[in-house]
Amino acid sequence: MNRQLTILNGPNLNLLGEREPGVYGRTSLPQIEDDLRAAFPDVAFSFFQANGAGALIDRLHRAHADEAGGVVINPGGLSHTSVALRDAVAAVVPPVVEVHLSNVHAREDFRRELVTAGACEGVIAGLGPRGYLLAVRYLMEHASTGA
Amino acid sequence: MNRQLTILNGPNLNLLGEREPGVYGRTSLPQIEDDLRAAFPDVAFSFFQANGAGALIDRLHRAHADEAGGVVINPGGLSHTSVALRDAVAAVVPPVVEVHLSNVHAREDFRRELVTAGACEGVIAGLGPRGYLLAVRYLMEHASTGA
Amino acid sequence: MNRQLTILNGPNLNLLGEREPGVYGRTSLPQIEDDLRAAFPDVAFSFFQANGAGALIDRLHRAHADEAGGVVINPGGLSHTSVALRDAVAAVVPPVVEVHLSNVHAREDFRRELVTAGACEGVIAGLGPRGYLLAVRYLMEHASTGA
Amino acid sequence: MNRQLTILNGPNLNLLGEREPGVYGRTSLPQIEDDLRAAFPDVAFSFFQANGAGALIDRLHRAHADEAGGVVINPGGLSHTSVALRDAVAAVVPPVVEVHLSNVHAREDFRRELVTAGACEGVIAGLGPRGYLLAVRYLMEHASTGA
Amino acid sequence: MNRQLTILNGPNLNLLGEREPGVYGRTSLPQIEDDLRAAFPDVAFSFFQANGAGALIDRLHRAHADEAGGVVINPGGLSHTSVALRDAVAAVVPPVVEVHLSNVHAREDFRRELVTAGACEGVIAGLGPRGYLLAVRYLMEHASTGA
Amino acid sequence: MNRQLTILNGPNLNLLGEREPGVYGRTSLPQIEDDLRAAFPDVAFSFFQANGAGALIDRLHRAHADEAGGVVINPGGLSHTSVALRDAVAAVVPPVVEVHLSNVHAREDFRRELVTAGACEGVIAGLGPRGYLLAVRYLMEHASTGA
Amino acid sequence: MNRQLTILNGPNLNLLGEREPGVYGRTSLPQIEDDLRAAFPDVAFSFFQANGAGALIDRLHRAHADEAGGVVINPGGLSHTSVALRDAVAAVVPPVVEVHLSNVHAREDFRRELVTAGACEGVIAGLGPRGYLLAVRYLMEHASTGA
Amino acid sequence: MNRQLTILNGPNLNLLGEREPGVYGRTSLPQIEDDLRAAFPDVAFSFFQANGAGALIDRLHRAHADEAGGVVINPGGLSHTSVALRDAVAAVVPPVVEVHLSNVHAREDFRRELVTAGACEGVIAGLGPRGYLLAVRYLMEHASTGA
Amino acid sequence: MNRQLTILNGPNLNLLGEREPGVYGRTSLPQIEDDLRAAFPDVAFSFFQANGAGALIDRLHRAHADEAGGVVINPGGLSHTSVALRDAVAAVVPPVVEVHLSNVHAREDFRRELVTAGACEGVIAGLGPRGYLLAVRYLMEHASTGA
Amino acid sequence: MNRQLTILNGPNLNLLGEREPGVYGRTSLPQIEDDLRAAFPDVAFSFFQANGAGALIDRLHRAHADEAGGVVINPGGLSHTSVALRDAVAAVVPPVVEVHLSNVHAREDFRRELVTAGACEGVIAGLGPRGYLLAVRYLMEHASTGA
Amino acid sequence: MNRQLTILNGPNLNLLGEREPGVYGRTSLPQIEDDLRAAFPDVAFSFFQANGAGALIDRLHRAHADEAGGVVINPGGLSHTSVALRDAVAAVVPPVVEVHLSNVHAREDFRRELVTAGACEGVIAGLGPRGYLLAVRYLMEHASTGA
Amino acid sequence: MNRQLTILNGPNLNLLGEREPGVYGRTSLPQIEDDLRAAFPDVAFSFFQANGAGALIDRLHRAHADEAGGVVINPGGLSHTSVALRDAVAAVVPPVVEVHLSNVHAREDFRRELVTAGACEGVIAGLGPRGYLLAVRYLMEHASTGA
Repeated sequence: MNRQLTILNGPNLNLLGEREPGVYGRTSLPQIEDDLRAAFPDVAFSFFQANGAGALIDRLHRAHADEAGGVVINPGGLSHTSVALRDAVAAVVPPVVEVHLSNVHAREDFRRELVTAGACEGVIAGLGPRGYLLAVRYLMEHASTGA
Repeated sequence: MNRQLTILNGPNLNLLGEREPGVYGRTSLPQIEDDLRAAFPDVAFSFFQANGAGALIDRLHRAHADEAGGVVINPGGLSHTSVALRDAVAAVVPPVVEVHLSNVHAREDFRRELVTAGACEGVIAGLGPRGYLLAVRYLMEHASTGA
Repeated sequence: MNRQLTILNGPNLNLLGEREPGVYGRTSLPQIEDDLRAAFPDVAFSFFQANGAGALIDRLHRAHADEAGGVVINPGGLSHTSVALRDAVAAVVPPVVEVHLSNVHAREDFRRELVTAGACEGVIAGLGPRGYLLAVRYLMEHASTGA
Repeated sequence: MNRQLTILNGPNLNLLGEREPGVYGRTSLPQIEDDLRAAFPDVAFSFFQANGAGALIDRLHRAHADEAGGVVINPGGLSHTSVALRDAVAAVVPPVVEVHLSNVHAREDFRRELVTAGACEGVIAGLGPRGYLLAVRYLMEHASTGA
Repeated sequence: MNRQLTILNGPNLNLLGEREPGVYGRTSLPQIEDDLRAAFPDVAFSFFQANGAGALIDRLHRAHADEAGGVVINPGGLSHTSVALRDAVAAVVPPVVEVHLSNVHAREDFRRELVTAGACEGVIAGLGPRGYLLAVRYLMEHASTGA
Repeated sequence: MNRQLTILNGPNLNLLGEREPGVYGRTSLPQIEDDLRAAFPDVAFSFFQANGAGALIDRLHRAHADEAGGVVINPGGLSHTSVALRDAVAAVVPPVVEVHLSNVHAREDFRRELVTAGACEGVIAGLGPRGYLLAVRYLMEHASTGA
Repeated sequence: MNRQLTILNGPNLNLLGEREPGVYGRTSLPQIEDDLRAAFPDVAFSFFQANGAGALIDRLHRAHADEAGGVVINPGGLSHTSVALRDAVAAVVPPVVEVHLSNVHAREDFRRELVTAGACEGVIAGLGPRGYLLAVRYLMEHASTGA
Repeated sequence: MNRQLTILNGPNLNLLGEREPGVYGRTSLPQIEDDLRAAFPDVAFSFFQANGAGALIDRLHRAHADEAGGVVINPGGLSHTSVALRDAVAAVVPPVVEVHLSNVHAREDFRRELVTAGACEGVIAGLGPRGYLLAVRYLMEHASTGA
Repeated sequence: MNRQLTILNGPNLNLLGEREPGVYGRTSLPQIEDDLRAAFPDVAFSFFQANGAGALIDRLHRAHADEAGGVVINPGGLSHTSVALRDAVAAVVPPVVEVHLSNVHAREDFRRELVTAGACEGVIAGLGPRGYLLAVRYLMEHASTGA
Repeated sequence: MNRQLTILNGPNLNLLGEREPGVYGRTSLPQIEDDLRAAFPDVAFSFFQANGAGALIDRLHRAHADEAGGVVINPGGLSHTSVALRDAVAAVVPPVVEVHLSNVHAREDFRRELVTAGACEGVIAGLGPRGYLLAVRYLMEHASTGA
Repeated sequence: MNRQLTILNGPNLNLLGEREPGVYGRTSLPQIEDDLRAAFPDVAFSFFQANGAGALIDRLHRAHADEAGGVVINPGGLSHTSVALRDAVAAVVPPVVEVHLSNVHAREDFRRELVTAGACEGVIAGLGPRGYLLAVRYLMEHASTGA
Repeated sequence: MNRQLTILNGPNLNLLGEREPGVYGRTSLPQIEDDLRAAFPDVAFSFFQANGAGALIDRLHRAHADEAGGVVINPGGLSHTSVALRDAVAAVVPPVVEVHLSNVHAREDFRRELVTAGACEGVIAGLGPRGYLLAVRYLMEHASTGA
């Protein structure tokens, strides 16, 4: 069973915790990563954050080349605009789950268009940092049952 | 701690398992309910399914009056059209998580408009029946930490 | 002269007073009904609230069958979506006045579309519970002058 | 051969004959039902009218459970708005034909959007009460040839 | 009683039976015409097919000049674009019924716009070649009752 | 208590009574003003009509400078277009109620956009000249209760 | 026969001849007025130009009060935005013909929306200063034949 | 000086006089042609009517090849849809004036889009058969002054 | 191997070389045809130009009946509007390549909608007369490799 | 060198300082004018404020007639709607810079459409009263360098 | 007082001076930087140009980490599309002013949508290289007054 | 004559051959590059692929600095979204031809918007890997003839 997961975070998520905390909360990205390691001790995580779409696509391709068991991606603002990132998700074999910290459906109109989500397996939005934990749990159960 | 959860299912979800299985899978609604009871033995679940928006709103109000600890709702097709159901979600105190079995972002254009989701705490879409389990897990953790 | 009026309230108006009081105020629906009875002692009111469009249409048809002198309707969220309710208003003989507690023109974009209002005689919006009183007054004067 | 047909009529069709006769004609719904029985004496008709989407979906599910040979539905105003009813049509096995008394393409813009029709086998619009007769004829010929 | 009917078929319907059979079926246009003659032996049919809007309008004008009892038209792709053909339908005296073999409401977005239908008496769509039979039946009954 | 009210009427309302009486009725503006004076003898009314947005904004500013107790405005066609008038309503202290004689929701599409109404306290539309009376009543009750 | 015509020119037409001559030509407004007087010596012209909608509406009302035989209006940029001016045209009795010097259909998108034209008797656009002459000729012939 | 003019009439204008007289009037096309010949005895008119865009484009090209002094075109319903006809107008040397009998700006939304007009020199709409006379007058004056 | 190709040119392409040379260049259609014959001496070309959609569809059907090896089509302005021509392309067996002389993506908005292209194998736009040569080369290579 | 500048302020800017100070700040218009005089002692300023578009256009024309060296305009709400004012800016010779106190791109959707700005030389928005100073500085430098 | 400013330039601004000089002028980016240093000798500038959004976001984050006193950003084409860059602007503490060399409101439609500007403090557009000087001046005055 | 060509491939084209082969075929990018070298042995190719827009713009600028004879670009998903890349194409001197492997006009709606193509010389879409060969051929012929 493949327990290698890639956790991709897009633009501005490196500022998590200090960036608009009323919207995104006060948990930092390293804390989220620690929480994931603690909650899933037998998963081999690869964490990656970048502010450019190109670097995220590169890393997604690598997860594909490395035959990762799954990918959790929070594309940040690219979720609403990047056809290139959507195509990358569609191009790779590992299942991809999209996560958003905030409830994008309750914000500005332009955040209600989810370009990348259409190529993902599914989306978890608005559940804060717990969204990452649930996405990993889904991928792990998915892997274990083959469903 | 409030471990009373209401699980609301909207129109056509009573046909789950036999309805368009290519889209919605082969698991029936009773099986999903059994899985929830098995996975969360210490939660007091109230299950309710109805095909009309009025009945779902009535039931949501009752969860409010009963001071339920949370609500998981799969509004089915009403998700894309019902301002009344959205207003009901906004009107009640218990946190509400919306679940969709299929990835609505990968289907017809009219399914990409999520009217009710904007009033919910968050959304889980495309992860099949596991979406209910993740939503309950979120609400239980939410309840236990008060976060 | 026909002094029988039907007052119809749509989804979530049963929660009035406790529901989003910043938007809808703190007056409950029974209080509004009491105020109407007190202000118009010689009017025979029929009050009805329901959360489903079907029940509201049924009741509107009954007002028609009973040859009510007029109807005041607050369709709640159905105002923005229900062609069926609009058709019901167009189908019945008694004059119908639509009331909204909040100023729908100052809220979300989807509340600026008034589907049902196009079939009503007129609309009063944003004047709070007084809107019901003004609507009844209009219908009573209308009835007495035949204009 | 299955000669059991369900004839579903949606909101406000109970007022047929007295409701906006310039648009919908002067034939009442019972007259239409009598005409159908007279024209197709060997068909076992189930007639049902309701003003709410939920009740119509319930009844459509029953036609499915009863393995009806076909369904004729006039969804009234729900035709233009109800994704839930569309999903119900898509969920059931019996072929469904949508009927409109008036020519919806010649009326208000919002009546030109036919949400439910996309899931039906076909649509007959603008041919008045004869539309029901033609739809039943189609379903009967369909049943007899298996085409 | 006027039993002269004109059956107009627009662009590409001459290829019926071999053209995209998954969408349009395997019945050829001559077969449909034979079926109509067989089913309505006492109707004097004029059949006409053309790929250009101008020729169809010419022929529609002729039906008008000849005082035909009615017209059945399948405008093919012109249905979605031709204001000129729509105006022709509006200009002529004989009642016109529009027929589509496929369910245009279940196909590409641009097929959901029915320009010509708004000027017709009604529309039958998605019922395959039977649609022509039903349209003729409607026109014949219409003629015989004068309704 | 401030019983000084300004009644503003926008473009073309000076022609009331002779202008499109099928839409706007046969009551003239002076008659409406007389009716208001008669119905509210203890209110000090300032009546003003102008066909230009600038003059209406000037007058609205004066009502503000004079600390009027409220303003009733019928912006006529400016209601659908004038951001400047909307900004003026938002800029002044006295509560403003918008009145339309006809039911703007039942007319041309461009009349369904109410630009100025979003900055008003509320709107009364479609109730004819009585709309002014109801608006004044609302402002007077508002003033007396401070609610 | 009423040979009194009002010629109304809207915003910026006072600058004609020096304003964007590539678009509007080099003929000044006084020259156009002289040409009209010369071409129609037995017509009593009232010429009026203003840059504000209010003044134009006032003047249009006056033409109505004076029972002018017709009005030629070049609303300039107001043509594309002013519902108030459109309503004024609809409110007055004399026939109104709209004139544009440039071909508005060949310019920016926002000039293709002709708000006022819908209430006029007709429109002449793109024929330069001759448009005024043709419009007057139309009104004079119209008056003389009563057609 | 070139006094050869081509008068092109598009789809359905051959039915003028009997076609929707409430909209298009009771004057027939031959009468219009006679009126033109009578009013402009020294102009060599070529009259042409066709219901298809191809034939109109062919004829427009011929006017170009014949070096006509100008063209008056009433494209009928093609005005709102035909890019091909628009391109033809742009391709030819003789000046083209578009004429509409009815005021297209006062009718259905789809008639407010004037595709062909953008390539013409100008447009005259809503002035009935006189529109042709005015267009010819414009072209003749244009030719005589060279402006 | 099938070396019979049909080259279809739509409206106004007969004027190539003299028509808006700044946009479409100075090469005439006969020159393009000569260049094709010279470049592909072993291809049997059928050249056809027409200004009407009907004639182009007729000719496309003939290429189908003749089992042509491929079709190059420049639909001119019909590319942006003709669903009928698109359906014809979809209906025929030979592969069809669409060619545009100018870069339609760099011109008016209405030229950016390519209706017919969606049914073609591909599109070459903006490369001038060379586009025809490249399209033929593609079809010949396609034919020779069967790919 | 021309050091005569006109500073135009549109509707509601006379209320600056007391009008929605959270949006527009607490500086009054006279203070802004004083600041400009103090900062540019060798500039001859003409200050003008009006609430109507007509008056602003009149004043803009005067700046043109007076051969002003430049104009700073804050059109207020007219910025989003007035084609007439845009045309006035395009019609005059002096360079015009548009200023907005608030950041219009961060407010309601209808404020993101800048109609007048397209005809101006440039726009400064969101920098508060300093925007006027910067605009004047730009015009002065522009004048001195002739660039 | 913090006199450290970051000047960010986005895609293609490295080609300034040689790139479309009719639109963007002939001043190169190094010249602009020299002009800024000369005009503000006591400001510590950090200049940065990149063609990718990721690098610009990285650099914006660094300005935030370095506690810069302000940022001037010309996002080039990213201004119209990048939600990620907008989010970066919203995430950082230093005030950000957006600059455009050309007047984006006078160009293609897609340049009128300013995605990033909504998160900035303000925008200066169309004033050429002087826009940078004015933006720096604003930030310096802002810093010195703390307003 | 300049025989140096740059071949740019955008996001995800490095996965060609294994990525959604049903859509993009089974030819890898190195194979396409080999085919180009084999077909044009006297062309000096520079091949470059990157997943980020910034890197592609950088490389396009280099082709400009190196005075390449032309550029073939397949922008992948960036074609539909990147104004920055479009601006880069417009900024450089070498002619640029856009290539798409699949027929973008036959896919999702968002792929029908070609942002970058408007700045290119032309587009070849849907002809698979042969598109690159045809684009190079065009650029070579272009170079040799200077046309």
